[in-house]
Amino acid sequence: MSELLPNYLQGRWQTGSGNGIALFDPVLGDELVRADAGGLDLAAGFAFARERGGDALRALSYRERGALLGAIVQVLQANKEAYYAIATANSGTVMNDSGIDIEGAIITLGMYAELGKTLGDAHFLRDGEPAHLGMNPLFQSQHVQVPAEGLALFINAFNFPSWGLWEKAGPALLSGVPVVVKPATVTAWLTQRMVKDVIDAGVLPAGALSIICGSSAGLQDALRPFDVLSFTGSADTAATIRSHPAVAAHSVRTNIEADSVNSALLLPGETSDSEAFGLLVREVVNEMTAKSGQKCTAIRRIFVPESLYSAAAEGIAAKLATITVGNPRNDSVRMGSLVGRAQLVNVNEGLAKLSAATTVLHDGRKASLIDVDPAVAACIGPVLLGTRDADGTTTVHDTEVFGPVATLLPYRTLEHALALARRGQGSLAASLYGNNTDMLATAALGLAGSHGRLHVVSPDVAQLHTGHGNAMPQSLHGGPGRAGGGEELGGPRALAFYHRRAAVQASTAVLAKLPR
Amino acid sequence: MSELLPNYLQGRWQTGSGNGIALFDPVLGDELVRADAGGLDLAAGFAFARERGGDALRALSYRERGALLGAIVQVLQANKEAYYAIATANSGTVMNDSGIDIEGAIITLGMYAELGKTLGDAHFLRDGEPAHLGMNPLFQSQHVQVPAEGLALFINAFNFPSWGLWEKAGPALLSGVPVVVKPATVTAWLTQRMVKDVIDAGVLPAGALSIICGSSAGLQDALRPFDVLSFTGSADTAATIRSHPAVAAHSVRTNIEADSVNSALLLPGETSDSEAFGLLVREVVNEMTAKSGQKCTAIRRIFVPESLYSAAAEGIAAKLATITVGNPRNDSVRMGSLVGRAQLVNVNEGLAKLSAATTVLHDGRKASLIDVDPAVAACIGPVLLGTRDADGTTTVHDTEVFGPVATLLPYRTLEHALALARRGQGSLAASLYGNNTDMLATAALGLAGSHGRLHVVSPDVAQLHTGHGNAMPQSLHGGPGRAGGGEELGGPRALAFYHRRAAVQASTAVLAKLPR
Repeated sequence: MSELLPNYLQGRWQTGSGNGIALFDPVLGDELVRADAGGLDLAAGFAFARERGGDALRALSYRERGALLGAIVQVLQANKEAYYAIATANSGTVMNDSGIDIEGAIITLGMYAELGKTLGDAHFLRDGEPAHLGMNPLFQSQHVQVPAEGLALFINAFNFPSWGLWEKAGPALLSGVPVVVKPATVTAWLTQRMVKDVIDAGVLPAGALSIICGSSAGLQDALRPFDVLSFTGSADTAATIRSHPAVAAHSVRTNIEADSVNSALLLPGETSDSEAFGLLVREVVNEMTAKSGQKCTAIRRIFVPESLYSAAAEGIAAKLATITVGNPRNDSVRMGSLVGRAQLVNVNEGLAKLSAATTVLHDGRKASLIDVDPAVAACIGPVLLGTRDADGTTTVHDTEVFGPVATLLPYRTLEHALALARRGQGSLAASLYGNNTDMLATAALGLAGSHGRLHVVSPDVAQLHTGHGNAMPQSLHGGPGRAGGGEELGGPRALAFYHRRAAVQASTAVLAKLPR
Repeated sequence: MSELLPNYLQGRWQTGSGNGIALFDPVLGDELVRADAGGLDLAAGFAFARERGGDALRALSYRERGALLGAIVQVLQANKEAYYAIATANSGTVMNDSGIDIEGAIITLGMYAELGKTLGDAHFLRDGEPAHLGMNPLFQSQHVQVPAEGLALFINAFNFPSWGLWEKAGPALLSGVPVVVKPATVTAWLTQRMVKDVIDAGVLPAGALSIICGSSAGLQDALRPFDVLSFTGSADTAATIRSHPAVAAHSVRTNIEADSVNSALLLPGETSDSEAFGLLVREVVNEMTAKSGQKCTAIRRIFVPESLYSAAAEGIAAKLATITVGNPRNDSVRMGSLVGRAQLVNVNEGLAKLSAATTVLHDGRKASLIDVDPAVAACIGPVLLGTRDADGTTTVHDTEVFGPVATLLPYRTLEHALALARRGQGSLAASLYGNNTDMLATAALGLAGSHGRLHVVSPDVAQLHTGHGNAMPQSLHGGPGRAGGGEELGGPRALAFYHRRAAVQASTAVLAKLPR
C-alpha cells in the first residue's frame, strides 16, 4: 500500500486510524498516497488551534504576521520543484496549468505579506472616523475591526490544492486567525506537502496551521461561536454545509464559493475581423482548456451578436482543433487530464445533458489522446456546444460542466445579452470584449449586481489584461446567488471576513486611549 | 369581530382569506384588530416588488432616495399621536417606552435621509481606489457597490414594531432595494398603520414597500437569488430561517439578530460611593425597566468587583423598589406591561430557570400592580437575581429572560470579568463603568471580538451618554455567535448589506467612463 498522509493537528503529526482513501495519478492510473482522518480528536485539535494558535497570532502585529507570510513564501519557493512534480502526478496538469495553482498561491501570499507592512504595528484596525453621538462632541462612536477569536476552517475544492489553501490562509493568518484546512481528498497530496514543508520549517507559531486529510465527517460539529468557515465546492455540498446545525446554532460566519455559469460577451458593433472578436476567441479557448476547464471562473457561456454566431463558432473551433490532449509529461501536449475518472464521468454526464439541448460545434473527443491509455487516463478534448435559441434553452444557463466545455449563444441587443448573462443567477466572473469604452463601462455596471467580477478586454489592454479566469488578489473573488454569495480576496477587503467589527461608544478621552 | 388588518402587496391592499389571529391589549385584555395573510399570492407580490419597486428605486440617485426617507419622516411625524395610542393599546408601554420605538424610528430614518444628501447624485458607490493589476498602470481593478437586484424581506420582532421596521427600511430604501416587512403578529398593528400612512401619502414608488401581517408561512419559499433577508427574533427561529432551503439553495444573504445575554461591568478600583458605581446602578435600573426589559440590547448580567457585590445588590434593589408597575394610562406608572400573556409565561419560565441557580435580591413581583387586573394584565415587576458563583452558574450566561430581569455577578480581576462577559458567547452590547480611561479602553477592546457594541460610561459623559441599550444609528447593531452574527446600522456601513460588491477590471479608459 502507498504512504498514508499524516494529518497535522494539535501541534503534532497524526496518522488516521483507518486504511484511508487512495489518491491516484489521473493519467497513468497509479496509486500515489492515501488520506485518512479516522480517530482524530477534532475537538481537542480545534481547541489547540483556537487557544495556542489564536493567542500567539493575535499577540503579533499585522507587520509581524505579514512577515510570517513572507516566510511561508520562501518555504514554498524553495520546494517548488516538488510541488510541480506532485501536480503533474496527482492533478494531471501540464506545467502551465500547475503554475496557475502554484505560482498563483505564491503571488497571492506575497501580496498579503506586503499588506502586512502597510498595516504596520497595529493589533486591530480602526474602521472609519469617530462619529458624534449627539450635539456635544465629547461622546463619540469609533468602529474597530478586531481579529475573530476563533479558528478558520477551510473545506476546499479539488481543482486548486495550492492556491485554494493559500488565497484563504494569507488573509486569515494576516488577520491573526489560525487555519485548519481540509483539502478535497482526490488532490490533497499537494496541500499536505505544502503544509508539511511550512510546519517543518518552523516559521509559524504552534496551532497556527493544521491540516486534516480525508473525510470531512465531524469537522463542522467541532465548530464554535466566533469560528469562521470557508467552503469552495459544489452548490449541493454548499447547501448542506450552510444548513449544518453548528452554523445555524452558533452563527458561524460562512463564506461559500460554489457553482458558476460564467459568461464571455462580445459587445454589439464588432465584426468578425475586429480586434475584439479575436480577443474573445483567444480568451474563450484559453479558458476552456486551462486546467482542462476545471476552474470555477472558467467561461461556460459565450454571447455574441446574432450575425457573428457562425463566425465565432468557426473561429473558436479552429483554435480548439489545435489543442493537443494527453499525458502532461509529453512536451507536445497542451492540455492534460481531469483530476480523475470520477470527474470524467461527471463531465460526460454534464455534456450529455447540455448536448440534448444544443448542437456540437467542435468535438475534441474525436481527436486521439497523446501518450495515454484512453481506458485509464481521465483525459477529454474540448467540446464547444451552441444553440441559436439562447432564450429557450434553460439548461445552458443552469448547468456548470466542470471541464473543457462551453456553449455559444447569440443575442439581439446589449440589453438582451445582459439579461441572458444574468440568467446564470449569480456568477463569479463575466468578461466583456469590445472597443467602445462607453458601452463597455455601461455593460460592466449592468452586470455588477449579478457578478463578482467584470473583466473588460479592450484592444488597448490586449497584451496586459490578466485573463478572464484568473482570480487576482487585488480583486474580489466570489459572486451572488448560484455562485454562493461569498467574498474572498479583493486586497484588504479579504480581511473583513476574519475580523469582527464593533462600535466603541465612549468619551473622546477614552477613545484616545485605545491601544494599538 | 375586530377589524382585519389589510396587507399591502403587489401594489394593492389585500385582506387575508382567513379569520386571522387576534391582537390584544396586554393590559386590559381587549381584542384590538386581527392579522391574516391567507390566500396572498406571495410569488406575484414579491415579483412586483422586485421588478416595479426595484426598477423605480434604482432609477433614483442616493440623494433622491434620501428625499423619499425625508418624506416618510414627515408622514410619520404628522401621525405620531395615533402611533402612541396604538403603542399604549397594543404594546402596553408608557409614553417614554413608546417613544423609544417611535421617536427612535424617526431619528434613524432622518439620519439615513441626511446620508442620501452626502452620497449625492450617484447611482452606485465606488468602493476604494482602483488598484494596479500589473506593472503597466493601464489595466486596473475598481471595486463598486451596486444596489442588490432583489427585494429585502424583514421578518421582525414584537418588541420594536416601529423602529424594527424603519431602522432596516431606511438603509434598504436608500440603497435602492424594495422592502417587504412581516412584523411579529402580536404587535403588528403599529407597523401596519405606519406602512398604511406612508402608502396612503403616496410618497414612495409602487412596489417599494409592502407589508404582510399574520403567518410567515411561505415567505422564504418565495425568495430568489439576489434577495436579502433580515430576521430579528429568537435564536431557535433564527436557526430555522438560516437553514431554510431557499437560503441554502439561492445564497439569499441573511442578517440575523437573535438572543443576547448582554453585560454591564463596573471596572476594578471603584467604590460604592464613586461616581461610576452610581452610573452603573442608574443604567442597570433603566435597562431592566425600559420597555419592561423587552429590548434585545438590555442588560442581563451585571459584573461588579467581589467587594462591591452587596453594595451593588442594595443600590440596584433600592432603585428598583421605586418602580411603579401597571396600566400605562395611569400617570403614576413608570413601567407598563409585557406585550402579552404568552410573553408573561415565557418570562416566568425563564425566571424559574434562573432562580433555581441564583438568589432573588429584589422581587418586584411582590409589589401591587397599579390600575390593572392581575389576572388579565401581562404586567410583572422587576426582579434582580444574583449569585456569588459567577463561574459555576452556567445558566446565567446562557439564558436570556426577555423581561425586567437581570443577574448580579461578582468577579475577581479585570481579566476574570472579561472572560465572564465572553461566556455570553457573543452579545449585542456591553457597557463599562469606571473613571480610568486606560483601563476602560483596554476593556472595550478586550470585548470587541465578542460584542457588537461597547458602551463606555465615564463620569465625564454621565449626562451625555446615549444609554447602554439604545441602538444609535451611527453605531453597529448586531453581535457574533449567540447574537446572530448580524450587522445593522453603523451609519453608512448599513448600506453594504443591501449592495453587491463587484470588481471591474478594465483599461483606465473604460474605468473613466463608469457612469454615475
